[in-house]
Amino acid sequence: MAHKQPKPLAMTLGDPGGIGPELALKAWQAYQNASKTSAHQGSDMLPFCLIAPARIIAQYADILAYDVPLIPVSDISQTSDHFANGLPVLEIADNGAAVIPGVAAAKTAYMVIDSIKTAVDLTRKGTASAVVTNPIQKSALYQAGFSHPGHTEFLAELAGPGTIPVMMLANSKLRVVPLTIHIALSQVQSALTTDVIVDLSRITATALSRDFGLVQPRLAIAGLNPHAGEDGAMGHEEQTIITPAITRLREEGYNVIGPLPADTMFHEEARAEYDVALCPYHDQALIPVKTLDFHGGVNVTLGLPFIRTSPDHGTALNIAGKGLARADSLMAALKIANQMAHNRFGTGTKND
Amino acid sequence: MAHKQPKPLAMTLGDPGGIGPELALKAWQAYQNASKTSAHQGSDMLPFCLIAPARIIAQYADILAYDVPLIPVSDISQTSDHFANGLPVLEIADNGAAVIPGVAAAKTAYMVIDSIKTAVDLTRKGTASAVVTNPIQKSALYQAGFSHPGHTEFLAELAGPGTIPVMMLANSKLRVVPLTIHIALSQVQSALTTDVIVDLSRITATALSRDFGLVQPRLAIAGLNPHAGEDGAMGHEEQTIITPAITRLREEGYNVIGPLPADTMFHEEARAEYDVALCPYHDQALIPVKTLDFHGGVNVTLGLPFIRTSPDHGTALNIAGKGLARADSLMAALKIANQMAHNRFGTGTKND
Repeated sequence: MAHKQPKPLAMTLGDPGGIGPELALKAWQAYQNASKTSAHQGSDMLPFCLIAPARIIAQYADILAYDVPLIPVSDISQTSDHFANGLPVLEIADNGAAVIPGVAAAKTAYMVIDSIKTAVDLTRKGTASAVVTNPIQKSALYQAGFSHPGHTEFLAELAGPGTIPVMMLANSKLRVVPLTIHIALSQVQSALTTDVIVDLSRITATALSRDFGLVQPRLAIAGLNPHAGEDGAMGHEEQTIITPAITRLREEGYNVIGPLPADTMFHEEARAEYDVALCPYHDQALIPVKTLDFHGGVNVTLGLPFIRTSPDHGTALNIAGKGLARADSLMAALKIANQMAHNRFGTGTKND
Repeated sequence: MAHKQPKPLAMTLGDPGGIGPELALKAWQAYQNASKTSAHQGSDMLPFCLIAPARIIAQYADILAYDVPLIPVSDISQTSDHFANGLPVLEIADNGAAVIPGVAAAKTAYMVIDSIKTAVDLTRKGTASAVVTNPIQKSALYQAGFSHPGHTEFLAELAGPGTIPVMMLANSKLRVVPLTIHIALSQVQSALTTDVIVDLSRITATALSRDFGLVQPRLAIAGLNPHAGEDGAMGHEEQTIITPAITRLREEGYNVIGPLPADTMFHEEARAEYDVALCPYHDQALIPVKTLDFHGGVNVTLGLPFIRTSPDHGTALNIAGKGLARADSLMAALKIANQMAHNRFGTGTKND
């Protein structure tokens, strides 16, 4: 039986003062433990390569006394050959700046950004299957001249003009897409337009179909107001903005239900009726997904020309280097990246 | 050991075309089953008396072929003596209007209202421990001239001027109080004032202390904006409205945390930090409580001079009389009423 070489996942460093390096080490350990208990592990999980200065990862392995051999690779394609023996690390430019666990420093910003750029580049060239990003600390990057509102916007710019990145949060129980994100609640009414709903729904449906194996994904769109407005008794945005979007999407052949009352659409029986919930604003989407599974949530960016997943938490500077960070979310991000790559490329079929 | 006669719970009819009568029958059966499996059932659950025309309840028992003997009582104090043998029913004025399962008719409105008035009256006089209401159909009551916005507002009017009813939803995992309720999302900013937050928090804390056995209840107040505004980056209401309320409440000696980011305050570890979450608007409060336990939710009205609980669902006209209704929520409403009565009055101590 011929063994085909799979394309690995490219994992970024994240802020070296945060929990990213520790999580990468823990994730490698978790992979090894899984492979010991499952004969099939090798065939259904893609290995990952960390894009980082090896000396920083070695520093954390040392502080934490983790028995994780680091294997420097000069090419990400060597990942699979070495993954069983240690954590493959693809070196990037290193200005030698000191890394202090718990401190996000502007001096390390260059390598944070270079890691992201390299991971994206490798993935776009097809030598990696997906980008899995560790958390960054925006404040440190801003000090170093980084001018993007956030991680996702930076990735969208690397992807090229016209890219609309769509944030989807997913765990084992629910997928949600907030239709507006980091704006004051008072600005939601003006930001939520029929075009926004249609655009984000199309991108979401396309991604679920291509990367999640859902032939005809079922979209559920929440109302903005209590009880989805109750026929206009408590707000009219359902009638003037949301329902017209649903009508257009249905005319285009999408499978869409809504506007649904947000409070009754997230319990188990209700969730069985759809594959993704699109919600007018941040808390409406994030409350249910984080309530149902706080530690296993994954941030998936749809609409990019490459696969990107990320743990759904920040740098957690307060616990960095202490061995306390939970790798649940990064592990879930690796699993979803794996699933997406499998669906998009087919396991082993596009490799070597 | 002298056996003291406990004061029963007064259960209202609700809309006779809805699932109320069926739920009452099922609740009585559930009590009987519980008493068979627990020797102590009689001592820790108060029996209930249904305030209704017996012929309507008999009609449902007949349609559903439920073996539930109905026991007409002329005084609610007879409830305990008969409860083991059948469902006690305290007769109210009956205009003989036909009841059709699934149809909410204006002709039955009089008895719906009379049942509520009688239950409140018995509870205020101290012959019943609490009012447990079945769901009403407002549209049918409006046709009959009922002019209150809803069930709760009607109860508040029966309670007298100056009463501020506070809706708390509770299940086995979470208690929430929405600080604004059935208004459009665009109106929340103007409805949410420091005074509203302070008033509702005081009423909530008083009730949790008196009726739920929490000596120093811990209140958590959610922010209005994503990430609770992130220091003003996404909205200022946390700084101008919510934090001043929290400051005042703390000065008055209440135990309050917040404003908390709403998306990260409802998972299991976060819930352990407080006894009740107060949320600026409807969906913020109702999404987590209904996501965590959809069928076991109870609507508790705080701030009334009597105990009132209610199942957290409507009349469900579409399934009335079919035997399909789940009594989980009414059973939970009975349990919480029982717990509140126990805390307020002490079991058996204020009886006879």
